[in-house]
Amino acid sequence: ERTGFPEIVYGLSKTSEQLKKIVEKLVSNHNKTLVTRISKEKATDVMASVPGGDYCARSQTLVYGENEPLDEGYVLIACAGTSDLPVADEAARTCKWMGCRVKTLYDVGVAGIDRLLAHRELIQGASVVIVIAGMEGALASVVGGLVKRPVIAVPTSVGYGTNLEGLTPLLAMLNSCSSGMSVVNIDNGFGGAYQATLIMKLAVDGGHPN
Amino acid sequence: ERTGFPEIVYGLSKTSEQLKKIVEKLVSNHNKTLVTRISKEKATDVMASVPGGDYCARSQTLVYGENEPLDEGYVLIACAGTSDLPVADEAARTCKWMGCRVKTLYDVGVAGIDRLLAHRELIQGASVVIVIAGMEGALASVVGGLVKRPVIAVPTSVGYGTNLEGLTPLLAMLNSCSSGMSVVNIDNGFGGAYQATLIMKLAVDGGHPN
Amino acid sequence: ERTGFPEIVYGLSKTSEQLKKIVEKLVSNHNKTLVTRISKEKATDVMASVPGGDYCARSQTLVYGENEPLDEGYVLIACAGTSDLPVADEAARTCKWMGCRVKTLYDVGVAGIDRLLAHRELIQGASVVIVIAGMEGALASVVGGLVKRPVIAVPTSVGYGTNLEGLTPLLAMLNSCSSGMSVVNIDNGFGGAYQATLIMKLAVDGGHPN
Amino acid sequence: ERTGFPEIVYGLSKTSEQLKKIVEKLVSNHNKTLVTRISKEKATDVMASVPGGDYCARSQTLVYGENEPLDEGYVLIACAGTSDLPVADEAARTCKWMGCRVKTLYDVGVAGIDRLLAHRELIQGASVVIVIAGMEGALASVVGGLVKRPVIAVPTSVGYGTNLEGLTPLLAMLNSCSSGMSVVNIDNGFGGAYQATLIMKLAVDGGHPN
Amino acid sequence: ERTGFPEIVYGLSKTSEQLKKIVEKLVSNHNKTLVTRISKEKATDVMASVPGGDYCARSQTLVYGENEPLDEGYVLIACAGTSDLPVADEAARTCKWMGCRVKTLYDVGVAGIDRLLAHRELIQGASVVIVIAGMEGALASVVGGLVKRPVIAVPTSVGYGTNLEGLTPLLAMLNSCSSGMSVVNIDNGFGGAYQATLIMKLAVDGGHPN
Amino acid sequence: ERTGFPEIVYGLSKTSEQLKKIVEKLVSNHNKTLVTRISKEKATDVMASVPGGDYCARSQTLVYGENEPLDEGYVLIACAGTSDLPVADEAARTCKWMGCRVKTLYDVGVAGIDRLLAHRELIQGASVVIVIAGMEGALASVVGGLVKRPVIAVPTSVGYGTNLEGLTPLLAMLNSCSSGMSVVNIDNGFGGAYQATLIMKLAVDGGHPN
Amino acid sequence: ERTGFPEIVYGLSKTSEQLKKIVEKLVSNHNKTLVTRISKEKATDVMASVPGGDYCARSQTLVYGENEPLDEGYVLIACAGTSDLPVADEAARTCKWMGCRVKTLYDVGVAGIDRLLAHRELIQGASVVIVIAGMEGALASVVGGLVKRPVIAVPTSVGYGTNLEGLTPLLAMLNSCSSGMSVVNIDNGFGGAYQATLIMKLAVDGGHPN
Amino acid sequence: ERTGFPEIVYGLSKTSEQLKKIVEKLVSNHNKTLVTRISKEKATDVMASVPGGDYCARSQTLVYGENEPLDEGYVLIACAGTSDLPVADEAARTCKWMGCRVKTLYDVGVAGIDRLLAHRELIQGASVVIVIAGMEGALASVVGGLVKRPVIAVPTSVGYGTNLEGLTPLLAMLNSCSSGMSVVNIDNGFGGAYQATLIMKLAVDGGHPN
Ligand SMILES: Nc1ncnc2c1ncn2[C@@H]1O[C@H](COP(=O)(O)O)[C@@H](O)[C@H]1O
Ligand SMILES: Nc1ncnc2c1ncn2[C@@H]1O[C@H](COP(=O)(O)O)[C@@H](O)[C@H]1O
Ligand SMILES: Nc1ncnc2c1ncn2[C@@H]1O[C@H](COP(=O)(O)O)[C@@H](O)[C@H]1O
Ligand SMILES: Nc1ncnc2c1ncn2[C@@H]1O[C@H](COP(=O)(O)O)[C@@H](O)[C@H]1O
Ligand SMILES: [Mg+2]
Ligand SMILES: [Mg+2]
Ligand SMILES: [Mg+2]
Ligand SMILES: [Mg+2]
Ligand SMILES: [Mg+2]
Ligand SMILES: [Mg+2]
Ligand SMILES: [Mg+2]
Ligand SMILES: [Mg+2]
Repeated sequence: ERTGFPEIVYGLSKTSEQLKKIVEKLVSNHNKTLVTRISKEKATDVMASVPGGDYCARSQTLVYGENEPLDEGYVLIACAGTSDLPVADEAARTCKWMGCRVKTLYDVGVAGIDRLLAHRELIQGASVVIVIAGMEGALASVVGGLVKRPVIAVPTSVGYGTNLEGLTPLLAMLNSCSSGMSVVNIDNGFGGAYQATLIMKLAVDGGHPN
Repeated sequence: ERTGFPEIVYGLSKTSEQLKKIVEKLVSNHNKTLVTRISKEKATDVMASVPGGDYCARSQTLVYGENEPLDEGYVLIACAGTSDLPVADEAARTCKWMGCRVKTLYDVGVAGIDRLLAHRELIQGASVVIVIAGMEGALASVVGGLVKRPVIAVPTSVGYGTNLEGLTPLLAMLNSCSSGMSVVNIDNGFGGAYQATLIMKLAVDGGHPN
Repeated sequence: ERTGFPEIVYGLSKTSEQLKKIVEKLVSNHNKTLVTRISKEKATDVMASVPGGDYCARSQTLVYGENEPLDEGYVLIACAGTSDLPVADEAARTCKWMGCRVKTLYDVGVAGIDRLLAHRELIQGASVVIVIAGMEGALASVVGGLVKRPVIAVPTSVGYGTNLEGLTPLLAMLNSCSSGMSVVNIDNGFGGAYQATLIMKLAVDGGHPN
Repeated sequence: ERTGFPEIVYGLSKTSEQLKKIVEKLVSNHNKTLVTRISKEKATDVMASVPGGDYCARSQTLVYGENEPLDEGYVLIACAGTSDLPVADEAARTCKWMGCRVKTLYDVGVAGIDRLLAHRELIQGASVVIVIAGMEGALASVVGGLVKRPVIAVPTSVGYGTNLEGLTPLLAMLNSCSSGMSVVNIDNGFGGAYQATLIMKLAVDGGHPN
Repeated sequence: ERTGFPEIVYGLSKTSEQLKKIVEKLVSNHNKTLVTRISKEKATDVMASVPGGDYCARSQTLVYGENEPLDEGYVLIACAGTSDLPVADEAARTCKWMGCRVKTLYDVGVAGIDRLLAHRELIQGASVVIVIAGMEGALASVVGGLVKRPVIAVPTSVGYGTNLEGLTPLLAMLNSCSSGMSVVNIDNGFGGAYQATLIMKLAVDGGHPN
Repeated sequence: ERTGFPEIVYGLSKTSEQLKKIVEKLVSNHNKTLVTRISKEKATDVMASVPGGDYCARSQTLVYGENEPLDEGYVLIACAGTSDLPVADEAARTCKWMGCRVKTLYDVGVAGIDRLLAHRELIQGASVVIVIAGMEGALASVVGGLVKRPVIAVPTSVGYGTNLEGLTPLLAMLNSCSSGMSVVNIDNGFGGAYQATLIMKLAVDGGHPN
Repeated sequence: ERTGFPEIVYGLSKTSEQLKKIVEKLVSNHNKTLVTRISKEKATDVMASVPGGDYCARSQTLVYGENEPLDEGYVLIACAGTSDLPVADEAARTCKWMGCRVKTLYDVGVAGIDRLLAHRELIQGASVVIVIAGMEGALASVVGGLVKRPVIAVPTSVGYGTNLEGLTPLLAMLNSCSSGMSVVNIDNGFGGAYQATLIMKLAVDGGHPN
Repeated sequence: ERTGFPEIVYGLSKTSEQLKKIVEKLVSNHNKTLVTRISKEKATDVMASVPGGDYCARSQTLVYGENEPLDEGYVLIACAGTSDLPVADEAARTCKWMGCRVKTLYDVGVAGIDRLLAHRELIQGASVVIVIAGMEGALASVVGGLVKRPVIAVPTSVGYGTNLEGLTPLLAMLNSCSSGMSVVNIDNGFGGAYQATLIMKLAVDGGHPN
């Protein structure tokens, strides 16, 4: 509870048995929890034992309950194409569960700059933007140049060859010529969402410390 | 002016002549500017030609004027030791020039955890924390675990051998077991400060978009 | 027998047939052996043919007999979470079989520093500490700062993206700001335990050479 | 003469003496040559001995004579800022000497997308575009998305930290989400220009082979 | 349609359902499309629903319709051996569908230089050459030295150990001692073909911009 | 004093002024200190201001006072040749200052295995061995195979090309086929000595914790 | 036939059908061939169609006929343990088929230097030595130091973590402190054997060129 | 004397004083020695003290006396251009001092294949070929394909950007599609020559072991 949010469970290396126990305890204590990186099989097991869960296969997230709404502005989640959707959805589901209003812009790539710029208002209206991009990660720089608000960049492992399983967009984003951008681990939609939400929470609290 | 702040000048690959012209123009238009990565020699040249500048050799920054104060909370800049001070000062001077209240905690390392924890209040009282660390970068994870507010981590090239000129703390910070942390380029005190300030600005604006 | 301990068998690239023969010979000559990285299938085959073995699936180790107890102090094995347990168990089983007293501290991470510090006595009471950590490996630095005794750090491949299959915590541990730490190969719980035990053996022998 | 262009000299690892001899021979046989990566000192030596040369310090190129004009369309050379100018000029001087018409667009970065798009006609009017970019190299992807003609991308070592001396923009450009782009070595303005000119030459020849 | 060619579909991360919809739309609007990286299973699904497709298993490409012929010269696709054929075929099928005349030279390696040179006329008669090579990628340099026309080099992941999944031939090609070569991503036969075709298109258009 | 040894000062990034102050304080409080990575110039400055220091240029160490002797056994410091001597001396001086008895074996390389084996008794008589090796680092494996006691391996940046500034021997040592070896950072003679001394201290204390 | 040996077939990326045809042709023309990296399934197919083959599963080689004996001295193939045997056998079978006399030394590692040195005569009696080693590859340096004759080192991908799939022993071998060693690709037992045999052939020919 | 050749001295990290002593001793005992990587300054010092030396500045080698001639065939040293000459000369001087007959082919590159092939007889007449190449290292593969005799490849750090200080040609040579090639460290002309000479020595000895 250090952050004001109940613990979030990283499902990957846990068994169904372990997950059931943890989720049971968190839900009975807090009425809510979020499990990330949980397969359909394990989610089915957990939901059979702890009712009230909502599973999303594409993002591999299982959600119980929700947190207090953060009622100012919105977090925009932008990505270029179908391959980044699992990461984008992980980010979106995490933000929503944590209380953020979320808008998404899922079909924009820098190779079609006009299609991206057609959404200028949506982009510039956001309080925080999460940009999710694989390949060369250039979307982050372009979006970063458009907004005055903080951008959190999430590189993805989408691509092949010199994408180097996401290292290339990661390094590119860290070198962005747009100021006001910071970066999280490859494919870490959860991490990008968490940071974006802490920013929104601070803003809703008017900048006062915890 | 896209971000509400006048342009910041990257001094490294510019000559005294080029810098003089740019600074002159920015100061005459906005009464303020910040030049980063500017050597003492070049700064002296610029200040001879454009009066009113304030140069700091350790951080290699030259400052003219200041931006409106962001009057809520403070940004904490934490680092472990003497070697990281140039980066820490670059961050501090950038934050201040941009209007933030800044506090610093410059002599804490994870090898002496009690000395760090003695400053728990200062740390937890911050609205945003910038953690600057070379070596293995572990300070970011420990500080990140202590606060509910966003942490911006700046890896530095301080260290030798397997520090790999800062790549090791960079990668470590991106893998932090503390949530709520995002990362900027190696030695990029400016970048960490810029992101922290955008967050403070959003908070002062109550979360409303630009 | 160069080290005073009977040969330990690396099971990974050996067939059941090869393992049976080696184990048979070692057990008949020394009444004891340790096989690491042995799958359940192969262990079942070996135990069917050489009775008296004790298999542990999580650590993939098969144990016969035991060595003389090293009756001073204890080795502490510390790790942060569920994902590092296979490596931690490999270390614990190796230390025990070699004669060490072992204590474990398996649920501490630097993101929750107070939970870790609650075990200060256990940590500082150890003669040697083995720290096992994936992600960014920061636990090693914090524990290293708490103790005056040697720390052996074992990086693990737990994590994703920039964890780089354990290279990141390895490099981080080699750059630790805590002195008195040395490092073994990624996921090498056995190697960490072996080094820790040699240290305990030397201590029990009062520092005299072999 | 295999390519229809007289030999071009790589000046870096050659002495003034060696360069004088080579240039003398090429100029007396062909009335023209191009020397790249030649310092001011060496260029002065060569020009003292072989009159008629034209030296440019920023691009470190020395030019004698010129090739037949390629009278269709133009090659556009685009880069973001002052730091990339030496590479851009190397490209421009090479293209011109080889006979191309050249236009340049030297002050556009993706962080200010509107300033870039203000030059849409210039960009889309080019027959071939050479994009020169350091940092994260995103300019190549955006320009590539705007034009139907071939883009040659030249990554530069401009940047620090995770720029990795140009490897990051190189890898990013190879992963570009824009089709119709190919890449040359880091800081290789000459190589980009050479490839662009071969393309222009083929076009002027109407697509017929040599 | 930005490039004058209808959209090409990247099949890898799309489901049969998604592919059917996209192909249906493209074929009904343009009477043609190209899908790359599409498995036999998915291609069968798509062809069952949209008749008129032509699938090639080795290159994993599915083709509908064709573009206007580019009636000057030919693109030569050269590779050394059987292992590079999937990439070579992807390139050949892309070039043909886009309208190029294509010739292939599929059994030449630099280890048998005379066998390669026996095809000198075929090689030097090409307007553009696509060289596809794994292992050490030396074929590109040798072919590049033989022709006056642009060479597009496609490194492949064929090889083991220090081939580093194609990084070695990629880096080698970028360092080629032959001028007039540019490089695309590892195994990117499509990308090489696309760039070659843009060059042919420009040539057929006589060098005029779009 | 956490480790029972007064603080050791890392001299590299500190000025003469800073070093004078620190050394003055440490010497007046503890009558002893060790400064590593200190140039001759800075050492001269410090010694002029704080008398009683002993400087060694090859190892770049400055020593004041000494710690209580650890009177059991000895630490052996082994290296292959002249190039590793600065690192070996840093280790030797650190061990001695910390109280260890030290023996050295400075002219043995695995390419002359018999010369190495001629010192078998010296090697096997050590309580702890520090092996310092550049190039391919094989000395560590051979020595590790000869002794039953802990080996601390220190890779050095001696070598060129594929030595990769010490990364190659580092990685090799971490993969050693000899058990009972752990590794510290490249060129970190200090770190190897510190760990060896902690081991000796534990042994002298009979294995009892702090 | 350029080298005096009939073509050797690399089986990995070829189908049973392709292999049958190639082997048929080579055997009918030369009465002999060698296929490397061929699975049991494919070998069975080929042998059913072309009688007279001899398949070895561990080395994945299929042999037909043999070359003229090279009747001087012998090639020694040395490796440390069971895991390197597939590569060692590939080397041994290749050498034998090419006509060399082969001796093997398969159970020696540098961690047990005396066991290795017990074979000094066998080692020093060889005309050429092929050393095959994974882990840290130190065996090559020790053997290289013992012999006056050429050593060909073959690194293997045996190991885990920092072995980096064979890159670590490769780099270590290239940095060997023993002169007279050259290196081939990771796991390339064939390549090591081929080079060793060319050396034997030259020697048998008394040093005269082809 | 293990190899039948007196010790060769690596001059780089030794002082003039150290070199004088070593050379004095070797020359007085054996009448000959070779010092590599020795600067002009140090060589002048040594020659002043030990007369009879022959220094070559380009290859940084100092030679005293000579070894018995190896009177069969010749070693060919081939490289592409002026930049590789220091390494080529180091190889040539080493081979000659060790007794080999040496021929050189210093102006051939794969970009001009016909110029290379004009020397086919010289190339195919060699008993051993040392190929020295920077950039992409393709010369080794082409030469390797032309000869039946062993090729030793020496990659050089000549090039920039993705040459990665010689790693790229090193990796490329290890992946060569020509069999019968082995590789030594980057810029290691000495090492290539040493291996070539051991091969010649074996051949002159008719393949008999030492
Ligand atoms: N997808 C994710 N990627 C990275 N960290 C995560 C992810 N999901 C949860 N976490 C973090 O992992 C912690 C829980 O880890 P665990 O105790 O292993 O379940 C939470 O506090 C989160 O901060
Ligand atoms: N120290 C720094 N590190 C990275 N980026 C910087 C730094 N200082 C300034 N910048 C950025 O560089 C831009 C100005 O670049 P330039 O036009 O080359 O002066 C500014 O908009 C800042 O975003
Ligand atoms: N050569 C060295 N390499 C690595 N760490 C060192 C070295 N010398 C001293 N240290 C460590 O650096 C710490 C002091 O750092 P500082 O406070 O910056 O002087 C000491 O506690 C030592 O543990
Ligand atoms: N295991 C192997 N590793 C590397 N190269 C090989 C191997 N086996 C055969 N070769 C080489 O591959 C060539 C044949 O390749 P291919 O024509 O694809 O069968 C032969 O000339 C050999 O030089
Ligand atoms: Mg912005
Ligand atoms: Mg936190
Ligand atoms: Mg400690
Ligand atoms: Mg385009
Ligand atoms: Mg060409
Ligand atoms: Mg041992
Ligand atoms: Mg030898
Ligand atoms: Mg050959």
